[in-house]
Amino acid sequence: MEAHLVSTAARSCPFLARTPVAALRQMQSPHGPVHAHVYSQTRSVSGSGNGSGTMPTSALLRAAQACPVFGPAIAFQKVRRVSSVAGRSMATSAAPAPSNDMSAVKPPIFKSAKVVSPTKDSLKKSLVEGTQTPPASTQACTGGFDYSGFFANELDKKHKDKSYRYFNNINRLAQLYPMAHTGTGEHVTVWCSNDYLGMSKHPEVVEAMKITIDKYGAGAGGTRNIAGNAQLHLSLENELASLHKKEAALVFSSCFVANDATLSTLGSKMPGCVVFSDASNHASMILGIRNSRAPKHIFKHNDLKSLEEQLQKYDVAVPKIIAFESVYSMSGNIGHIKEIAALAKKYNAITYLDEVHAVGMYGENGGGVAEYINAIDDIDIVCGTLGKAYGVVGGYIAANANLVDMIRSYAPGFIFTTSLPPAVVSGALTAIRHLRNSPVERAGQQLHTRMLKSTLSDLGIPVVPNPSHIVPILVGDAETAKSVSDELLNRFKIYVQSINYPTVSVGEERLRVTPTPGHGPELMDGLVGALKTIWTERGLRKEADWAAEGGRAGVGLGRQVDQLVKADDLREMMDRAYPYALNTLAGKR
Amino acid sequence: MEAHLVSTAARSCPFLARTPVAALRQMQSPHGPVHAHVYSQTRSVSGSGNGSGTMPTSALLRAAQACPVFGPAIAFQKVRRVSSVAGRSMATSAAPAPSNDMSAVKPPIFKSAKVVSPTKDSLKKSLVEGTQTPPASTQACTGGFDYSGFFANELDKKHKDKSYRYFNNINRLAQLYPMAHTGTGEHVTVWCSNDYLGMSKHPEVVEAMKITIDKYGAGAGGTRNIAGNAQLHLSLENELASLHKKEAALVFSSCFVANDATLSTLGSKMPGCVVFSDASNHASMILGIRNSRAPKHIFKHNDLKSLEEQLQKYDVAVPKIIAFESVYSMSGNIGHIKEIAALAKKYNAITYLDEVHAVGMYGENGGGVAEYINAIDDIDIVCGTLGKAYGVVGGYIAANANLVDMIRSYAPGFIFTTSLPPAVVSGALTAIRHLRNSPVERAGQQLHTRMLKSTLSDLGIPVVPNPSHIVPILVGDAETAKSVSDELLNRFKIYVQSINYPTVSVGEERLRVTPTPGHGPELMDGLVGALKTIWTERGLRKEADWAAEGGRAGVGLGRQVDQLVKADDLREMMDRAYPYALNTLAGKR
Repeated sequence: MEAHLVSTAARSCPFLARTPVAALRQMQSPHGPVHAHVYSQTRSVSGSGNGSGTMPTSALLRAAQACPVFGPAIAFQKVRRVSSVAGRSMATSAAPAPSNDMSAVKPPIFKSAKVVSPTKDSLKKSLVEGTQTPPASTQACTGGFDYSGFFANELDKKHKDKSYRYFNNINRLAQLYPMAHTGTGEHVTVWCSNDYLGMSKHPEVVEAMKITIDKYGAGAGGTRNIAGNAQLHLSLENELASLHKKEAALVFSSCFVANDATLSTLGSKMPGCVVFSDASNHASMILGIRNSRAPKHIFKHNDLKSLEEQLQKYDVAVPKIIAFESVYSMSGNIGHIKEIAALAKKYNAITYLDEVHAVGMYGENGGGVAEYINAIDDIDIVCGTLGKAYGVVGGYIAANANLVDMIRSYAPGFIFTTSLPPAVVSGALTAIRHLRNSPVERAGQQLHTRMLKSTLSDLGIPVVPNPSHIVPILVGDAETAKSVSDELLNRFKIYVQSINYPTVSVGEERLRVTPTPGHGPELMDGLVGALKTIWTERGLRKEADWAAEGGRAGVGLGRQVDQLVKADDLREMMDRAYPYALNTLAGKR
Repeated sequence: MEAHLVSTAARSCPFLARTPVAALRQMQSPHGPVHAHVYSQTRSVSGSGNGSGTMPTSALLRAAQACPVFGPAIAFQKVRRVSSVAGRSMATSAAPAPSNDMSAVKPPIFKSAKVVSPTKDSLKKSLVEGTQTPPASTQACTGGFDYSGFFANELDKKHKDKSYRYFNNINRLAQLYPMAHTGTGEHVTVWCSNDYLGMSKHPEVVEAMKITIDKYGAGAGGTRNIAGNAQLHLSLENELASLHKKEAALVFSSCFVANDATLSTLGSKMPGCVVFSDASNHASMILGIRNSRAPKHIFKHNDLKSLEEQLQKYDVAVPKIIAFESVYSMSGNIGHIKEIAALAKKYNAITYLDEVHAVGMYGENGGGVAEYINAIDDIDIVCGTLGKAYGVVGGYIAANANLVDMIRSYAPGFIFTTSLPPAVVSGALTAIRHLRNSPVERAGQQLHTRMLKSTLSDLGIPVVPNPSHIVPILVGDAETAKSVSDELLNRFKIYVQSINYPTVSVGEERLRVTPTPGHGPELMDGLVGALKTIWTERGLRKEADWAAEGGRAGVGLGRQVDQLVKADDLREMMDRAYPYALNTLAGKR
């Protein structure tokens, strides 16, 4: 019977029989050759609850549930198993139920009003695939899935591993930038916003939005296809295409949606497509790749050797996407754009570059790191956001006209959603145009980043070394990171959110500080003083302590990392806007 | 060897061996027991291109690629196959390549600058998994995947089946609502916006947004967790929870994202979850369900029998989600909320109700159809939009506190994205609060819907009968629908977008008209006159013609459909705001 089942199974799944033994062997471990992204590690199907001793690991259960062929088979199995258990426990209702029976599951709380006693008919139906014993009581219903318990348990897990997020109430004040008021009305300095250049309060942006609201109203009123496509949307896309020197651009609700929609559409439509994804890619790219269901290879973060090892397994005839970032937001690392583009050429892959944390901030036009290092033509698809340096909200891709048109025509995440409000579009357009002509904001941002990194380094406060505008301060423990963040807020009126797992690895929890052009010397003194006090009072690990422990997250390894933006370029950009800058730039990297 | 492979395979996939023969038999058809949604039908992996005679159908290929275990196996196989083909064609380069060889694929155009002649080394690497014959020429590179050709071909398909979308340039003018100017500056009347109640130009909404931009700037500056969580966001969520009489609410970038994020998170996290989805559900729900990878059953649109047949296959212990809508936007049909909720109670399922086209428009507070029919407590999760009746942009869910907190804590589409701009939030909040207290807008909308349906019916112009505020006029052909839409725009200065496949079925192409409170008798006369002229001049099928053909999309079946909102309720709401309404309501359904 077993042999018959297996051969039947093999007939239903033609890939099984065609898979080489070597490949299967490699896949026998729970995770197989599919590397786990940070995100996917957080998604465990907790306790499948049917308690069979031979149940596979939850990773394999997920794998099988993900298969449209076997997913339903598992459901069938579950019905059979559960039904026969229900039948059994009814037949021997006096005996205590074994702990792995469904009848031992807690009765539902959340749905308590809805679990009606099953009628004879409904019970018969639920048993139709299982034992033929007719129902004698209503006891089977106590095995109903406990929705409330499930949700509570999932939250409990977050509390236990300290990854539960408490949102701070932060109301950023345009007129007092970079100050905000909290829920109690108290003023605090915001040191962790992604409004990197303060464009969200820029008078031109604010004015453009207000004028647009008066003229075109609050919302777009429809999808791009139905009443929601205005000249502003077209102008914005033209501007973005021009910014990135591409033929076309396409605007989405957010860059999360841009990444998810573009990668899932490309990956699923190109026949046999394989995706190569940097291990530190953002959750939105991870999700887009996952949703494409294309085979994927995760290469080690910023590791060209790891990428090439995986690329060279595939012929030039296999369509490939290499997805990576220019600025990795939690570490501040810079992707190897030119080198990855060269590998893409060599292996006939297309490159998908996330410049979300770079657009507006690098390059003569604010076109991103690719523009700054003169690699803009090497990239096939660039994606960016209108919600960080450009200060508003929304995301986009820019690429070859046909590619963009294909995404426009096929991606549900683009097609079936209300388009961005005209005022959001005009605000973003104004910010982009301003930053194409004004280097002052990005110069100020770079300057303050240098000043802060330099000062913290002198104090031994451990900054994760990186060439970009991000200043990650290593704490190394979830509870401490949150507690330091709370103390900064409550005692020093400084808001820096702690970054914990799963956004960063366990043991690499940090404070992620983002200086802006508005964070001048006075505010910086306040931040540095507060950090110094907290580090001293709490005896937190400094650079030297991390070095003594062998280093972590790049800290304590004695690494010298040059800033991406050269001091000469920065000097040229500043144009006397920052008189206090001369000392800072003198003799610094 | 074959037997060894199969048994190896069975060991690597524990579900294969445990699957009953009957279940496998049922799954042997290409689509298996997984029903195809409209959306998924449009996503064919066109020509997998490796031309093996024994290749499975593309549906099965997709199924296997979707499996994290077998996906990589296919990739392995492809490398082996392609490499050996490449090796072969090099060894016999004078012979014409068989048409199913990869070497017959067109050379790349899009990537022409990037397909470098392979070096000896790179060729050797690409062949490492295949034949050991060393490369003798550079010919293998001509087999490189043709990205440009692929994108062009995908667009060509859209042109051929007339589903290619041409966006009209429509700039809705707040001061001249419901007029817009086109790309040339010409004024047209917009008759198809989802700004159903004209709230996008409401003075309170406009003013709230402008004040908020001045106070809090253009954008939120971060995710909800990092600097992007303001009192406004919390107030909006409280308002939404209160509107729907739920414990909590959660706001997303859009309702597309709300549906995708919530359904994919719920469906993937609840162990063994099965999703039951109405066949007419919106693309965002379809995608969320698909991305959850939970087994799903598509029940016939609004068919309780079809739903129950599928529900009763599962035990109460299996977590289940029933996903459906209150107003189906393309047909105007109303979901059977109470009846579906009763089935959910009977089978211990949770209900997920999309009220996107109903919030703000039905019920005393604008809480949606569920509020109007007093079924608000029957629904577990309601989702809505801030971009249609509320006139701005964004989406949300409202539900039990723990459920909402779980989505807040686990859904990447919520967590890792910039939060909505404060001004968007304050505009939406103002619109919701206004519509909780003012029935005038929804009364006007209902009134004009009745007037239009009634007038068109008298003229025999074929309206898809439905109880809601949508007025779908059946055309029945993609080219004609687009052409009528173009004529309305160019000749009559009336903008009604044509709705074609895949949004509606082939043969059911339509004009989707959405009257608002601003579309009074004068504008209506204009629309009706234009439609009358076009229908007469072109000899388009009227109600009677559809009846003679046996009916289509509900047209021509002699169906009498009552409007959901009772005339008495409407009268009560109107409060003399619409003096011309008395005749319309007299004696009408």
